[in-house]
Amino acid sequence: MLETMTPIPRAEKELRKQQTRQGLRRLSGLQLSIRENKLPVIVLVEGWSAAGKGSVISELIQELDPRFYNVISFDTPTETEKRHPWLWRYFTQIPAYGKIQFLDAGWMEQTARDYLEQRLSQEELESRQQSIRRFERQLCDDGYLLVRLFLHISAKEQKKRLDALEEGPDTSWRVGKFDRWQNEHYPQVEQVYDQLLQNTQTDAYPWHIIDASNTKSALPVILKLLCDSIEQALAHKPTSGIAPTQFSVVSMPPIASVPLDKTISKKEYKKQLKHYQNRLKELHNRLYRRRIPVIIAYEGWDAAGKGGNIRRIANALDARGFEVHPIASPTPDELHHQYLWRFWKRLPKNGHIAIFDRTWYGRVMVERIEGFCTEQQWKRAYAEMNEFEEELMDWGGVVVKFWIHIDPDTQLERFTLRQNTPEKRWKITDEDWRNREKWPQYEQAVDEMLQKTSTARAPWHIIESKDKRYARIKAMKILVEAIEKALEKDKRC
Amino acid sequence: MLETMTPIPRAEKELRKQQTRQGLRRLSGLQLSIRENKLPVIVLVEGWSAAGKGSVISELIQELDPRFYNVISFDTPTETEKRHPWLWRYFTQIPAYGKIQFLDAGWMEQTARDYLEQRLSQEELESRQQSIRRFERQLCDDGYLLVRLFLHISAKEQKKRLDALEEGPDTSWRVGKFDRWQNEHYPQVEQVYDQLLQNTQTDAYPWHIIDASNTKSALPVILKLLCDSIEQALAHKPTSGIAPTQFSVVSMPPIASVPLDKTISKKEYKKQLKHYQNRLKELHNRLYRRRIPVIIAYEGWDAAGKGGNIRRIANALDARGFEVHPIASPTPDELHHQYLWRFWKRLPKNGHIAIFDRTWYGRVMVERIEGFCTEQQWKRAYAEMNEFEEELMDWGGVVVKFWIHIDPDTQLERFTLRQNTPEKRWKITDEDWRNREKWPQYEQAVDEMLQKTSTARAPWHIIESKDKRYARIKAMKILVEAIEKALEKDKRC
Repeated sequence: MLETMTPIPRAEKELRKQQTRQGLRRLSGLQLSIRENKLPVIVLVEGWSAAGKGSVISELIQELDPRFYNVISFDTPTETEKRHPWLWRYFTQIPAYGKIQFLDAGWMEQTARDYLEQRLSQEELESRQQSIRRFERQLCDDGYLLVRLFLHISAKEQKKRLDALEEGPDTSWRVGKFDRWQNEHYPQVEQVYDQLLQNTQTDAYPWHIIDASNTKSALPVILKLLCDSIEQALAHKPTSGIAPTQFSVVSMPPIASVPLDKTISKKEYKKQLKHYQNRLKELHNRLYRRRIPVIIAYEGWDAAGKGGNIRRIANALDARGFEVHPIASPTPDELHHQYLWRFWKRLPKNGHIAIFDRTWYGRVMVERIEGFCTEQQWKRAYAEMNEFEEELMDWGGVVVKFWIHIDPDTQLERFTLRQNTPEKRWKITDEDWRNREKWPQYEQAVDEMLQKTSTARAPWHIIESKDKRYARIKAMKILVEAIEKALEKDKRC
Repeated sequence: MLETMTPIPRAEKELRKQQTRQGLRRLSGLQLSIRENKLPVIVLVEGWSAAGKGSVISELIQELDPRFYNVISFDTPTETEKRHPWLWRYFTQIPAYGKIQFLDAGWMEQTARDYLEQRLSQEELESRQQSIRRFERQLCDDGYLLVRLFLHISAKEQKKRLDALEEGPDTSWRVGKFDRWQNEHYPQVEQVYDQLLQNTQTDAYPWHIIDASNTKSALPVILKLLCDSIEQALAHKPTSGIAPTQFSVVSMPPIASVPLDKTISKKEYKKQLKHYQNRLKELHNRLYRRRIPVIIAYEGWDAAGKGGNIRRIANALDARGFEVHPIASPTPDELHHQYLWRFWKRLPKNGHIAIFDRTWYGRVMVERIEGFCTEQQWKRAYAEMNEFEEELMDWGGVVVKFWIHIDPDTQLERFTLRQNTPEKRWKITDEDWRNREKWPQYEQAVDEMLQKTSTARAPWHIIESKDKRYARIKAMKILVEAIEKALEKDKRC
């Protein structure tokens, strides 16, 4: 049974009103500090149908400046949302630093409903809960304040409200089939919510069960809770631990030890290229029909030949079914969100292929080395990136990661060639030369990245690219085999 | 009958291949100039089903750097797209300056199909064509290069290809009902395409009808055409005329002549506020159910009271059904697109209300006065903004525009108060004081804006805001009446 917070005793109407007014003023007073301290706040309002989630939110925002908050109401997922990982609709919409966001239900309601309507097995439900825990932890580690409310009403109260809504000519449309079903199966639904709340309960951001049988009494309670949480968050920056990576990893050789003498003859290259491109073309067609998404991550040294490698793969694909995402420095807007946000936003629809020319791994390479993030942030990122990819694979995605490898001498040759060839000069900048001086630091970062993120399900592939032709064929072969395996597995399901 | 460009004579296979290779190299060579000159290029590939639109695009991009182009394939509109103006899916996806975009069919195919499948009346078809002409003209006036191809094949060739696709186990799914229907009703479809092409034909960006009966012969033709167009665009910046505003406007008084002595008692204010807020709440519910979108545009002097005015309206609305968009300076990404792009992106779904705190009219006020755009650009903008709003109203939207008005003395009083009140100080910046010095220039710009964009369908409402309470009630009353009118009209349909 859900245990609710004791509502304030039914004090006189006046006292309650006064407390609400004070609470609204206090919240309004806090919004400037939220903005100045760049604190992002998510207020997740979950609860029973007809518990008053919408009304509560409407009351809470009364005194707020519309520039600093937004409200999102999550309906049944749209077609587009259904073609993405289930968390996609939530992750892509997290608020920017310094803003407050109110969610009228979210991942809890969707999960409960998906399970109750038998779109999730017990096992899938477990996996969902894990993905919720990771998602919320990632946000909180990044400094998001997450306030989670569950508005609780009894079966009797719910029935009364649904009846009343149904009687009103302007409100009857609000009562859907699922709302009634929920009321008729109240104990069963309660059990599911109970389990979900317990399994996602944490000390850092506890669930607050609110007695919502009287919205007017609930309001001062919620306002106090919300304001207290905000003040606390403003006072103490959370000191997040570094989440232990719980993924089994495959062993990787130190990058400097990889021999770079592999080559292929021009003739053999042409033959193999044709073979793999034709094969890839066929496979792309099947992926599309089976709605399997593919995410290809390219990392590697400057001038290692990423661009040409990508182009050979892209050339084999149907232009309508893939996208290449060159990843440059984050925009100001991207810097105002958790760092994985910009990658969530670039995920392909299922059936499509996304090729990332540089990736989320920038966090543990350039951002680490240039000091664009704190030590705690990049150390935490290994686990976060493993979790991110896990989410993609649970969605059914094929994740293939390439490290395009050369040695410092080869890089120097290619840099010099670029510098001396007018139509290639745009490809080389002062920054490339500066990065080159940091080769040893990068090497160390790359090694650590390969060790910590070469998970059994999504290992790194080192592509020897001193001979670019050899590299192209090797990458294609790995990609083709990964897709074949996924299609095979999908067939068996 | 469609007249096709003469294909190159069936030269030997080798010659054709050579020309294609040369064309691809030439296109690849041009991409750097495109980028450096920040030229945005849209290659719209329309044509019959099975004419090879996808294959042509796949060939064209062979040598291009994936960082500089993208391909969009427009399927049947999604739910989300259907809840927006029909042009929304196209406008929100225009490429950034310096990029090439290939569209695998677009507004032509959608329009032809909507008409053929009887989702558009003859009259609506006319209006669609006008909206296409305006859309394309706006892009070209902004410096976009638009290359439009129509891939033409005969009914017999089309049947042959559809049969072949249907026989292949991996390709049969590509043949949809509409493709067959198109083939069976070839003459009827041809007539519609003919009409569409003729009615959207212009000198600036002509339609190119390509004989696509042999893709390999068509490629060198298309490549030449595309490269020639790009070179031409790089050589000459288009000197766009200023589109005459074709909208009937209502007469507006010079802003300085508007008396500001209107007031309301506190008691009367409270009474009226309650009345209109309740009414607005009811109406919001109905708008939602009838899926009518509302767009509210707020402009006005600094410290005129826009924020408080907006908040009184927002407070009456269901938090799940509206959004407030504060409009600040454009982001770098927004500066790399036609200036209306960022407003298209913020349009509400139908049934929702979007409140803009400052708007697209910034073009003819701050951007004009501060020189952030050229004279030609802001002069052109009056018509463009009228057209934008026309598009919203044709979609069924209610457009309400407020000019929140005070005099210079009132502004000075409020600025001083803000400066002297610690918790209000963030609201005032040096820029506000600088803008204040330019009052006469702004006044002139405001007058011109009111004269030129107060269209009969979307007039400006001047809201006297020396007494902020009076202003709030007046704005609400106007909004309520506009919504009532729209609901009344919608009922009659």
